[in-house]
Amino acid sequence: MKVCKFGGTSVASATQIKKVAAIIKEDATRKIVVVSAPGKRFDDDIKVTDLLISLAEASLSGKDAEEELQAVVERYADIAAELGLDHEIAQVIEQDLRDRISQDKENRDLFIDQLKASGEDNNAKLIAAYFSSIGLEAEYVNPKDAGLIVSDEPGRARALPEAYENLRNLRDRKGIVVFPGFFGYSKDGVMMTFARGGSDITGSILAAAIGAELYENFTDVDSVFAANPKIVDQPVEIKRMTYREMRELSYAGFSVFHDEALMPAFQHSVPVCIKNTNNPSAEGTMIVAEREYSNSPVIGIAADGGFSTIYVSKYLMNRELGFGRRLLQILEEEEISYEHTPSGIDDLSVIVRSHQLSPEKEERIIQKCREDLKVDDVHIEHHFAMVVLVGEGMNNTKGLTARATTAISQAGANIEMINQGSSEVSLVFGIKEEDTTNVLRALYKEFFSTTAVLGV
Amino acid sequence: MKVCKFGGTSVASATQIKKVAAIIKEDATRKIVVVSAPGKRFDDDIKVTDLLISLAEASLSGKDAEEELQAVVERYADIAAELGLDHEIAQVIEQDLRDRISQDKENRDLFIDQLKASGEDNNAKLIAAYFSSIGLEAEYVNPKDAGLIVSDEPGRARALPEAYENLRNLRDRKGIVVFPGFFGYSKDGVMMTFARGGSDITGSILAAAIGAELYENFTDVDSVFAANPKIVDQPVEIKRMTYREMRELSYAGFSVFHDEALMPAFQHSVPVCIKNTNNPSAEGTMIVAEREYSNSPVIGIAADGGFSTIYVSKYLMNRELGFGRRLLQILEEEEISYEHTPSGIDDLSVIVRSHQLSPEKEERIIQKCREDLKVDDVHIEHHFAMVVLVGEGMNNTKGLTARATTAISQAGANIEMINQGSSEVSLVFGIKEEDTTNVLRALYKEFFSTTAVLGV
Repeated sequence: MKVCKFGGTSVASATQIKKVAAIIKEDATRKIVVVSAPGKRFDDDIKVTDLLISLAEASLSGKDAEEELQAVVERYADIAAELGLDHEIAQVIEQDLRDRISQDKENRDLFIDQLKASGEDNNAKLIAAYFSSIGLEAEYVNPKDAGLIVSDEPGRARALPEAYENLRNLRDRKGIVVFPGFFGYSKDGVMMTFARGGSDITGSILAAAIGAELYENFTDVDSVFAANPKIVDQPVEIKRMTYREMRELSYAGFSVFHDEALMPAFQHSVPVCIKNTNNPSAEGTMIVAEREYSNSPVIGIAADGGFSTIYVSKYLMNRELGFGRRLLQILEEEEISYEHTPSGIDDLSVIVRSHQLSPEKEERIIQKCREDLKVDDVHIEHHFAMVVLVGEGMNNTKGLTARATTAISQAGANIEMINQGSSEVSLVFGIKEEDTTNVLRALYKEFFSTTAVLGV
Repeated sequence: MKVCKFGGTSVASATQIKKVAAIIKEDATRKIVVVSAPGKRFDDDIKVTDLLISLAEASLSGKDAEEELQAVVERYADIAAELGLDHEIAQVIEQDLRDRISQDKENRDLFIDQLKASGEDNNAKLIAAYFSSIGLEAEYVNPKDAGLIVSDEPGRARALPEAYENLRNLRDRKGIVVFPGFFGYSKDGVMMTFARGGSDITGSILAAAIGAELYENFTDVDSVFAANPKIVDQPVEIKRMTYREMRELSYAGFSVFHDEALMPAFQHSVPVCIKNTNNPSAEGTMIVAEREYSNSPVIGIAADGGFSTIYVSKYLMNRELGFGRRLLQILEEEEISYEHTPSGIDDLSVIVRSHQLSPEKEERIIQKCREDLKVDDVHIEHHFAMVVLVGEGMNNTKGLTARATTAISQAGANIEMINQGSSEVSLVFGIKEEDTTNVLRALYKEFFSTTAVLGV
């Protein structure tokens, strides 16, 4: 039994949804279909999710939101018409939206979330109706009815253990289950959305719960590439990679698959396959627990900007038991999580994602470092990027760091930070944001210029 | 006014003490002389400090310690006789030792410390007597009388602010002050010893207190070298280096000057000169606040073994605010200070000096990581060495890391850890202990093979 998840571009139009149906028909083991909200049909198009946010905001502002509502309904109605469905499904969706905007608006975030989640929810209803219309035995299943119970954390909910028990019953359904991605319900029955990449998370949870033989994640690329195709020209395809590799790459800006989405599949040993809705015969990228890695030590290179460094120095810092711990505590009090902490003997830097900082927070951190930690110096710098080289067994490959650092220096960039030594599968370089493109290209050239295909 | 400190080999014999006298005579500004206990006269010799430890242990065991006592007295008596002093000084020393061994033995550590400190104390008396005998106006000054008040931390005492005020009065003494290194007194009048390299610390405190123009630290080498001469054949001399450079080098196994000893001089902007008692006309190595560094980005390479790594991994660790802080807290509860914390995305390693661990501590740490932090994996590995490249401005030199990592890989060693990004003057590599010699030699060759002299 397989779980298939289709992303926004895969379900953006009637043409795309027909491809989805063909994919499902082709393989009788594809029993559970998780769908996103309709995405962009073309570059300048507006995603349904964004239309829904406009609708929510218009409603919250108290003004007449009829125009915004019709924009959403029309998108579904157009798709339904092109799919040859009767007008009923559009009426169902319109009524659903009217119900949602007439709900209590006291909790603004919940109100917006409920409208956003309708994007996936109504698309699942529409796709289930289409499947039925072409003779596929299929039904829309609501996450609440199916028992997708999640933690009480709006925007970052996690499935609770009982969710897995409940969802396991989906195995026993006779036809195809069409399930909306992105949200579940708390024990109190309140809708909760997942983090970014929420439909991937839903698919992963379902695959784990039913013990799927495979979780197929359909997107709009033939495979995961060794580097960002927007920066590197025609990067090589990765045929097979491990969960760890995917996770490290996702973390540093690989947008194909959201890193958290891997957890349920990983924990229940369900292999994941990234496939292309527009070219389903392409093999795609398999994400598995283990792989042979003698062929190429590096499988991918990713980079992400938006990092800042909090630098402190204090003479004889290393003699002060608890210094580092107290510095991290100051950040914790500001609810800042950190990425890396390179250290000298009298120096310590903490690298954080810049979006967590604000001028006020920075001022408080600096003041606490001066007053509580009595540092000699403290300052905060911005505009760093992290470049991550990823590959199983990489850190046991002698000379690899030398090749990477040589490539970076030949690209004319200075290495601001190196973090190596904990993860066996990654090597992290801090560079200036402005050097990112050059460094990515230089590293790609160093490690992949003679490689045809990866992970096999 | 200069403070001169003479190390153990510089005051080990009459011949050496005559050299000290010549050095003091040569420059009228050399007003304060800090002395160590007599060190080894030849390779198989026993240092007076070790004779004193034997004496202390014999006394504590309750047996007759006359033989051990005479061994100490004889060393001083021999030196005194060869210096042409009468028997009185040996009698003073013998009486002092008899007083010390008849003291209360309840606090064993204090009893041992008091005997150890007699090595410096009695040598200062002897050298002051010799100076007087050759017509130099000189007096022995006791740290208690001079007001060298320190924190109540046996074996790792630190001078308190009032010590600096008290010691400043030494400026007004007419003749030469001969001062024993290694110890001071708490506010309650209890003798406290300094950390390893204690006589260097005393000299540094005195230099800072009197606002010396220079702190001359006499040892048995012409200068500080760019690498350990026991590993690298005839390493180049460092003519001038900064406090920061010296500190980073001392930390990683450079034994010329103890790192903590630099603090008082550093904080009071007293330049330090490392000179050779056996070749006082050699320029030595100047340690200053700033230097030009365009000439060579790397000034020294040091390595030290005896490091362990505590490795933990947990899926989605980076989402858990406070994870790293709580791990450091577990170590803090075991009174373990850490050196570096390289991190991956789901991994975190803490590098510590192995001597702080024990099988019991390791077991408790592993248990707490499993139970309190709920990690997926935790293990501890030993036998790592840290290799440190040091140089002002080094981290702004493009390509330097590439050269270093290439040299290490060509030496056939794997880089287990890299820490770069906080200190501007150092770059730390973690390697296996067994690779230390090869790596040091390879790095030396890479950075120094064409350099004649450093820091000028």
